Amino acid sequence: MSKFPQIEHHEAAGELKATFEDIEETLRVPWVAFACRVMSMFPGFLPKAFGAARAHFSTRHAERAADSLRRNALLPARGLRDPRPALRKWGWSEGKIAELIGVLDAFNYGNPKYLLLITGWSEAIQGRHPHGKPLSAEDAAPLPRGRPGQVPSLHHMVDEHAASPEVLRLYQRVKDLHFHHGPSSDYRLLANYPDYLALALEEAIAPVVRTPEYDRKQRDLIAEARGWVHSLPGPVGVDPRALDECAPRDIAGLTGLLFMYQRFIADITIDILRLKQAFDGDAAAAASPFAPSCR
Amino acid sequence: MSKFPQIEHHEAAGELKATFEDIEETLRVPWVAFACRVMSMFPGFLPKAFGAARAHFSTRHAERAADSLRRNALLPARGLRDPRPALRKWGWSEGKIAELIGVLDAFNYGNPKYLLLITGWSEAIQGRHPHGKPLSAEDAAPLPRGRPGQVPSLHHMVDEHAASPEVLRLYQRVKDLHFHHGPSSDYRLLANYPDYLALALEEAIAPVVRTPEYDRKQRDLIAEARGWVHSLPGPVGVDPRALDECAPRDIAGLTGLLFMYQRFIADITIDILRLKQAFDGDAAAAASPFAPSCR
Repeated sequence: MSKFPQIEHHEAAGELKATFEDIEETLRVPWVAFACRVMSMFPGFLPKAFGAARAHFSTRHAERAADSLRRNALLPARGLRDPRPALRKWGWSEGKIAELIGVLDAFNYGNPKYLLLITGWSEAIQGRHPHGKPLSAEDAAPLPRGRPGQVPSLHHMVDEHAASPEVLRLYQRVKDLHFHHGPSSDYRLLANYPDYLALALEEAIAPVVRTPEYDRKQRDLIAEARGWVHSLPGPVGVDPRALDECAPRDIAGLTGLLFMYQRFIADITIDILRLKQAFDGDAAAAASPFAPSCR
Repeated sequence: MSKFPQIEHHEAAGELKATFEDIEETLRVPWVAFACRVMSMFPGFLPKAFGAARAHFSTRHAERAADSLRRNALLPARGLRDPRPALRKWGWSEGKIAELIGVLDAFNYGNPKYLLLITGWSEAIQGRHPHGKPLSAEDAAPLPRGRPGQVPSLHHMVDEHAASPEVLRLYQRVKDLHFHHGPSSDYRLLANYPDYLALALEEAIAPVVRTPEYDRKQRDLIAEARGWVHSLPGPVGVDPRALDECAPRDIAGLTGLLFMYQRFIADITIDILRLKQAFDGDAAAAASPFAPSCR
């Protein structure tokens, strides 16, 4: 299994490293999305694109848009079982179960934000910039930078190059189920818990992924994210004319990647919310414990 | 409006020109798709990818798969009106109307084939190669190369760089309606008939595009195309290891472009079938006059 080309956080240097940190601080999340790591390979793109987006993502308006996407990403709980009994049977401590749920909470907090970010970038590179009204004072109110204290660190994504045969099989299963090109950050973090990941894929994900209901949900999330982007008063990304370090085929490639990751991130938003839902039910999944509006 | 980076047919030389001609001859169609023109910018990709696909697309099996996709791409005729009265009022001759319908027929013949081709390439670059059974002798029967004699030439796609302000407005409208990155070959051919194109967009396309029903149709076509690809006995595209002239970010870009164009071509398949349907009804739209099985 070949690893999809990308620049990992620990490999980033200089302006790129600063942009990775800025993305985490601004979105208040503990990881840089797969999409961003891949697009970091294109000269100048990530710093310019995030420079255009930053101001729009520091507001209560963005936080509320993410809250709405999160609520709307929930599929019916039909068929889900609480994984706790199985985990306890396998000898998991209550502390380890809580740690896992913290990981799910962290991704559920950030995934809808990345869906908004990539949607804005995708619209911009296709030349569609929003022309919405200025935000109200309340919507424009800035949020503190940096992740809320309760959000756990997500320090170890399992690398394909260092993964066990068991984890590689799970990555292949994730790809094949979704018709995806590689495992998301979320699944690379869950690969630290391979027994749980195997259970989650078979019980919660495989029965729904790529069904008409799931694809309809993905489609609706993208439509909602686009609606939010076009409600903004100005550009949230860069158009090709600003990407003067990129060759024509880089512009084409970025356009395709943004289109793909917009859909990829919508899928992952649905998935990880569903994993939380299996543990704690609809209401707990639909409302992030880290969203300011819920505290 | 900036033109999306691509290599036009008349700009292709050497191995690329030969591949463009091979694609047209093998698929029996009179144009090289937008997707192929864009991916021609990536070193070595198009000749290698078509080399892997060629044999699968020379068969009755492929022609039948395209026939099925075409039938299934039809949306309900609800709301459609025959454009002939409007065209006649604008002074169109019967000959010009027949010429336009010939253009629609040519695209309707080829669009489902390109959906199959791009789907196979997309699966291959993501490392999913089919493991189906060998074809039956009947399915494997070769089709003659070259487009059937009745298929018209599609000689003049209007270039963004040479388009009138009216055509540029129509291209913008096409992009904005679909949330696309540029006009397809189909729309660039229809731009030779701007009065018709304006009517078609407002009457036939705008009311349906990106509705839940349209997006569901797109999703079902992609699922069907994938099913066909995975019924084949062997690879229909190249995986990244074979793309040794490509940089890692080229591999990433191609993966994104294939994902995007798979969906783009499904949209255009739906659209152009609908334009034919407005002229000649459901049955005539669903069965190409050029498909061998219909003659």
